[in-house]
Amino acid sequence: MEFIVDQQVQDIELPENLKLNTFLQEFHSECHHPECSFGFYGFAFGQSPFPVPKLIQNELVKNASKGAYAAVPGIPELRSAISKYNKYYFDIDVDPQRIYVGPGTKELIFNLLEILHGTVILPTPAWLGYLPQIRLLKKNYHMLPTGANRKISPNSLRKLGLRLQDRQKILILNNPHNPTGLLYDRLELEEIADVCKEQNILIISDEIYAQTTYDFSKFVSMGKIYPEGTFVTNGLSKSHAAGGYRLGYVIFPQNASDLQLQFKKILATEYTAVSTPIQHAAVAGFEISDEMNEYFTITRSIHEIMGEYTYNKLAEIEGVKITKPEATFYLLVNFNHYSLELQTAKITTSQKLSEALIVHPYHTAIVGGDSLVLERTDYSARIAYVDYDGGKVYENYKNHKPKTASEREEFAATNAPKIVAGIKMIKRFFEDIKKENLKNLKAKNDSLKITS
Amino acid sequence: MEFIVDQQVQDIELPENLKLNTFLQEFHSECHHPECSFGFYGFAFGQSPFPVPKLIQNELVKNASKGAYAAVPGIPELRSAISKYNKYYFDIDVDPQRIYVGPGTKELIFNLLEILHGTVILPTPAWLGYLPQIRLLKKNYHMLPTGANRKISPNSLRKLGLRLQDRQKILILNNPHNPTGLLYDRLELEEIADVCKEQNILIISDEIYAQTTYDFSKFVSMGKIYPEGTFVTNGLSKSHAAGGYRLGYVIFPQNASDLQLQFKKILATEYTAVSTPIQHAAVAGFEISDEMNEYFTITRSIHEIMGEYTYNKLAEIEGVKITKPEATFYLLVNFNHYSLELQTAKITTSQKLSEALIVHPYHTAIVGGDSLVLERTDYSARIAYVDYDGGKVYENYKNHKPKTASEREEFAATNAPKIVAGIKMIKRFFEDIKKENLKNLKAKNDSLKITS
Repeated sequence: MEFIVDQQVQDIELPENLKLNTFLQEFHSECHHPECSFGFYGFAFGQSPFPVPKLIQNELVKNASKGAYAAVPGIPELRSAISKYNKYYFDIDVDPQRIYVGPGTKELIFNLLEILHGTVILPTPAWLGYLPQIRLLKKNYHMLPTGANRKISPNSLRKLGLRLQDRQKILILNNPHNPTGLLYDRLELEEIADVCKEQNILIISDEIYAQTTYDFSKFVSMGKIYPEGTFVTNGLSKSHAAGGYRLGYVIFPQNASDLQLQFKKILATEYTAVSTPIQHAAVAGFEISDEMNEYFTITRSIHEIMGEYTYNKLAEIEGVKITKPEATFYLLVNFNHYSLELQTAKITTSQKLSEALIVHPYHTAIVGGDSLVLERTDYSARIAYVDYDGGKVYENYKNHKPKTASEREEFAATNAPKIVAGIKMIKRFFEDIKKENLKNLKAKNDSLKITS
Repeated sequence: MEFIVDQQVQDIELPENLKLNTFLQEFHSECHHPECSFGFYGFAFGQSPFPVPKLIQNELVKNASKGAYAAVPGIPELRSAISKYNKYYFDIDVDPQRIYVGPGTKELIFNLLEILHGTVILPTPAWLGYLPQIRLLKKNYHMLPTGANRKISPNSLRKLGLRLQDRQKILILNNPHNPTGLLYDRLELEEIADVCKEQNILIISDEIYAQTTYDFSKFVSMGKIYPEGTFVTNGLSKSHAAGGYRLGYVIFPQNASDLQLQFKKILATEYTAVSTPIQHAAVAGFEISDEMNEYFTITRSIHEIMGEYTYNKLAEIEGVKITKPEATFYLLVNFNHYSLELQTAKITTSQKLSEALIVHPYHTAIVGGDSLVLERTDYSARIAYVDYDGGKVYENYKNHKPKTASEREEFAATNAPKIVAGIKMIKRFFEDIKKENLKNLKAKNDSLKITS
């Protein structure tokens, strides 16, 4: 039987997780080298390595019998806990009525894009998840490439805003930022907000990594700066290491109750509500407790140590440019210094760079440039520094907190041997590329000599 | 701030669950009668009253620590269990690769409608959930009203198929059927399938109530009759009394692997995967076990007893027409016999009938005709017979199975006092309507006399 598929579905690209899975299956289902049985150094998947906090697990256990449908916007206890969580950690006053719970922020962002009329502004590089959503919904959109500092320039935003004819525009802000690990400070947010007010731009502020900010006092939510025009999304996936639970939330702007009704309608039309036992479990994750506080403190410290180590070691590779992460568990490394050598080696795109790095002897899984909404020939890669045993490392950190710079480096080296080895492999790869190139060059010169 | 909402979002109606909630809040937040503190007789919500099976709960408890993202189509153990479940209960051979797990069949049906090109054919009456999805996706659609027997007529389907110009059409079949409780037999399904093959109509066969079929040997899946063109959806919500868990599945037609890839892309774009602990719990619900077998047997027997009771008692109301349920926990009752009296009492639509029944002294919540995709002036209502303590009634049934007709009636009367009282209220309402009408008629005649 022949099946006819809607065109916009055919046109969208594979989202990140599928791309990575397909990629790893295709290029790494088994190593073809006869003496190798090694898997790979995992710098690709954006998943927290830590265990789900015990008190969340305990609540899931206690609420396993809850088989009844939950209210569409979320159970009241959860909306109330999220409200208090936002007050305590992010200093935002949010009426629980402004909070909607969904099965992950991904779906909530999709739902927001469904209801909001207008052209989408997508700063790049970006998490790959937004683009297929925008395309599937056939929305008009414009990329907004960031400058050398990898942050949105208010001036460029203003210029783009002036060019766009739509009465309403939607900026997708991701702060802290995946894939760069960068954090916007208050002043930067204020400048962006000013342009947004002026140009009638709404903001979807994806703050899923907020709680991972290494110096947590530095994190400022756009919901505080521009409360009348910002939709803040956050959830359990990164800060609570429970991506698999599938629970996120969105805070609506102030005075948007008509819009909320439209949103509620969409949620009820598409998925009714989030799993009831999962919602009850999440309450414990958002309630203020010493246990959660300690969990956030320890996990963000470990992310920082691993990030520092990865940054410093990658920086030893000649010519690379790296973002210095202030949050998340990613950094963006730019290998364009090797463009010529890579092209000579027929590694003509960032996708091909990923493919070259995953095979023997390098075994290194990274996320290449085109998966970060960059040009295909931009040899940049996202490096996630989470390939270690989170449960064990958490305990090790708790038992003995590293203090000095050398203790911190030692901690990373001891606790994350795959990160150590993986970075060495990346280094070796570029050394090899260079050597290969010199050899080629020499061969070329030699052959030139012969023919001449 | 003013927010601009996309037009198709504004145009869709509230889905059933929201409509009911809003309705109950509006018309029944508190009874205005000074001596009344009673809530309401719940014939409206379509939710199984039984506890979630213990072995599902136990597996959720065991898997509370599973915080990692699951594979997009579902975890392999679950797809394999669902495959065996379909073989054992529905006699369909399904490769696990044809099965996709989603957060409820509602969202899976939405996703199917997203990817499949073509005009949707919606037989009526229907569960209200389909229509807002079709409208939100701006799909062309045609209603297909059913005849006196409330079932799809193959001839009408053929005629409609011939009229529709689209190369591909999609029939939404709901079997067993919400709101009528009716079941299609093999011959009826074959006749529908023949028309579908001839007219290039795909079928989304929503079989969420399959397991509730009272004489289970009578249930036949459309996936068995028309495997090359049917998408079968089912899940935990009704048969496993776990609507709040949010887990459903779809079985793709044979030889649709390209289509499956498109579908997978949509799931990854919109929600990544279903909650991992919930998926592990669901495995126990779909694996073949004595415990689940007993659970299905007992729950469907209780639904049958309650359905029989409700049917017989409602039939005592003069002039009503009722579908005799063979599955589900619903029946459809038609009060059009009272159309004149209702109109005289200014109850001009089925919505107004619902409003009149919910207030003092009747306190009876039903789902009216326009929420069932019927004409607004069709005084039909869906009666859900689930307003009893499912846990207690389950135990009572297990301890002493009623055998004879009178034992069964006695069982319902003893175990579901709110159903008993609620039906009496409906009866009383129509008696009152009639009396009121006679009074009015008399008053009118009297006044006529005076003026004459």
